[in-house]
Amino acid sequence: MKIDVLTLFPEMFTGVFNSSILGKAQEKGIVELSAINFRTYSNNKHLTVDDYPYGGGGGMVLKPEPVFAAVEDLQAQADEPPRVILMCPQGERFSQRKAEELSQYKHMIFICGHYEGYDERIRQHLVTDEISVGDYVLTGGELPAMTVIDSVVRLLPGVLGNETSAVTDSYSTGLLEYPHYTRPAVFRDMKVPDELLSGHHANIEKWRRQQSLLRTLERRPDLLEEAELTDQERKWLEQVKRSRDKN
Amino acid sequence: MKIDVLTLFPEMFTGVFNSSILGKAQEKGIVELSAINFRTYSNNKHLTVDDYPYGGGGGMVLKPEPVFAAVEDLQAQADEPPRVILMCPQGERFSQRKAEELSQYKHMIFICGHYEGYDERIRQHLVTDEISVGDYVLTGGELPAMTVIDSVVRLLPGVLGNETSAVTDSYSTGLLEYPHYTRPAVFRDMKVPDELLSGHHANIEKWRRQQSLLRTLERRPDLLEEAELTDQERKWLEQVKRSRDKN
Repeated sequence: MKIDVLTLFPEMFTGVFNSSILGKAQEKGIVELSAINFRTYSNNKHLTVDDYPYGGGGGMVLKPEPVFAAVEDLQAQADEPPRVILMCPQGERFSQRKAEELSQYKHMIFICGHYEGYDERIRQHLVTDEISVGDYVLTGGELPAMTVIDSVVRLLPGVLGNETSAVTDSYSTGLLEYPHYTRPAVFRDMKVPDELLSGHHANIEKWRRQQSLLRTLERRPDLLEEAELTDQERKWLEQVKRSRDKN
Repeated sequence: MKIDVLTLFPEMFTGVFNSSILGKAQEKGIVELSAINFRTYSNNKHLTVDDYPYGGGGGMVLKPEPVFAAVEDLQAQADEPPRVILMCPQGERFSQRKAEELSQYKHMIFICGHYEGYDERIRQHLVTDEISVGDYVLTGGELPAMTVIDSVVRLLPGVLGNETSAVTDSYSTGLLEYPHYTRPAVFRDMKVPDELLSGHHANIEKWRRQQSLLRTLERRPDLLEEAELTDQERKWLEQVKRSRDKN
């Protein structure tokens, strides 16, 4: 997979692209990551990439020319048409499903605005996907782009070793994870639950499943509607809810 | 404001903390950002910070000792009790409202896990807030912590200049933003809408408000329920919906 990020702040990406999973995925040759300053595609001598908005108002707007020129230059080097992804608050809400979809592509180009708006012609005529990571205001598209890239690259075959794949699969069961404990069994009077110390495998599995269900009920009941539960589990959760609502 | 991040990958933060708004906010003395490797708080000679989970299963679990030791060391240096924020998929969904709440605090400590789970005792007895940035799986809490920090710091007085504050306020009206355009008025046959070129201020405002409403209706109808709309606007949106549903 090849991922190009168009940004005015390529130095923001250095530490993230070269550490941990993303660094290792590049070393293994599974992904090639580049952060490209699209200011170099400006067609004027002052290398400006933004301008005042038509119709007035505060803020600056990214000009169409440098962004089109940068994307087209990258497209010309590609074997198949790349996805062109705009990070913006108005985009489709990013989800694990979207990460899985994007992990199928060979080439992605991310466009990151920074403070500014985007000229609407970029949105309408250049991009294939608009993605938002959540309902909060950020300074630019850089952190959202890194977020999407991290979630996509870790899905590529060979990127995660066995040691790292298990715990992070929070969404694979559709439930929140059960609580984890490690040594010491007693830390400052805080004890690990007896069930986990019992060595009784079936009891441990049962405890974990119940904890997962309880935590999801408490924190994210919306997930229970979609989760795969047995009839028995649904009945048990109803009982828990009833006794909770009584108290 | 003082923000300390406990992480095993402090080098991931360098580029982000030193660029753009976060870099400027530090230069101005408005915020002090530190990424601290909590491996240095390990109490064993191999500097391990994780261990196998009680009850078996894949993945490793962050041990309580180094995380408690690191947080308590930072707390001891603080004038008032800091917020202790755990980045995790099970946490409260991050929102602009939460960013505003956090922007009122003087000192925050972020705990970032990486691949691993957290020993539950960290969650129960050390942290004040658990935050999730969205329903997607990431390699660690580092990118989520950067995301929260960016959204909080840009709210601090004096951080954003006038030139940067306007366009990013996507959520202040409760609606998605209207389209932005800048020069050239015609780019490869793609034209800026006449309304914006008219110079007629009231017409421009009307067009922008309608575009904002239309875009929100199309992409995020859930936001319309909470948004402040006039009766006339609500009627107009009903008309638009009816004629849309007919076609």
